[in-house]
Amino acid sequence: MMRNLNNNLFDNLPSLVHGEVFDILLQHQQVKIERIVSKGHADAADTWYDQAQAEWVILLAGNARLQFAKDKAIISLTAGDYIFIPAHEKHRVDWTDPAIESVWLAIHLL
Amino acid sequence: MMRNLNNNLFDNLPSLVHGEVFDILLQHQQVKIERIVSKGHADAADTWYDQAQAEWVILLAGNARLQFAKDKAIISLTAGDYIFIPAHEKHRVDWTDPAIESVWLAIHLL
Repeated sequence: MMRNLNNNLFDNLPSLVHGEVFDILLQHQQVKIERIVSKGHADAADTWYDQAQAEWVILLAGNARLQFAKDKAIISLTAGDYIFIPAHEKHRVDWTDPAIESVWLAIHLL
Repeated sequence: MMRNLNNNLFDNLPSLVHGEVFDILLQHQQVKIERIVSKGHADAADTWYDQAQAEWVILLAGNARLQFAKDKAIISLTAGDYIFIPAHEKHRVDWTDPAIESVWLAIHLL
């Protein structure tokens, strides 16, 4: 018996003109796995996420930039790039490509 | 200040003729994130992984098939397909594409 999977990260992308959409792929005791689709979204300047939990995130389509509060460094990401963000490491989305969907996979450590 | 990331899932792929190679991308208290690169690898027939921990896995390049012991179902995966494998859900790799590298991202819940 051969079956296809019905779960594909790149299926059913929201038809975004602008913004970001979150989908929970797995909610477990110690981990939440989330798909984030962004298009042209950026967080306001000097507005930081300060998360109580660590996060490991990989960009799997598109192009994006993240900024970190501690040194204001801007990190440029392309498909396949991943980064670990420790708890309370303040960061923001500086830019996502306005021309195509950026697809992130975020692993939140609860 | 603009920086590029030096961590990309598709960089430094092992030059596999046949087999599989594991790299740990994150080892944390409750989660281990691993890259698995396979080429032409399959587990022997009727040989099952019986893992004490649950695993969420996504195939991000290549083509593969997984088989599950409970109903012998074979699941065909292509890039972007993901699946949650509960603890003690016996499974095996039935096939991976011998022509190209298959790249998996596995999230082990510890």
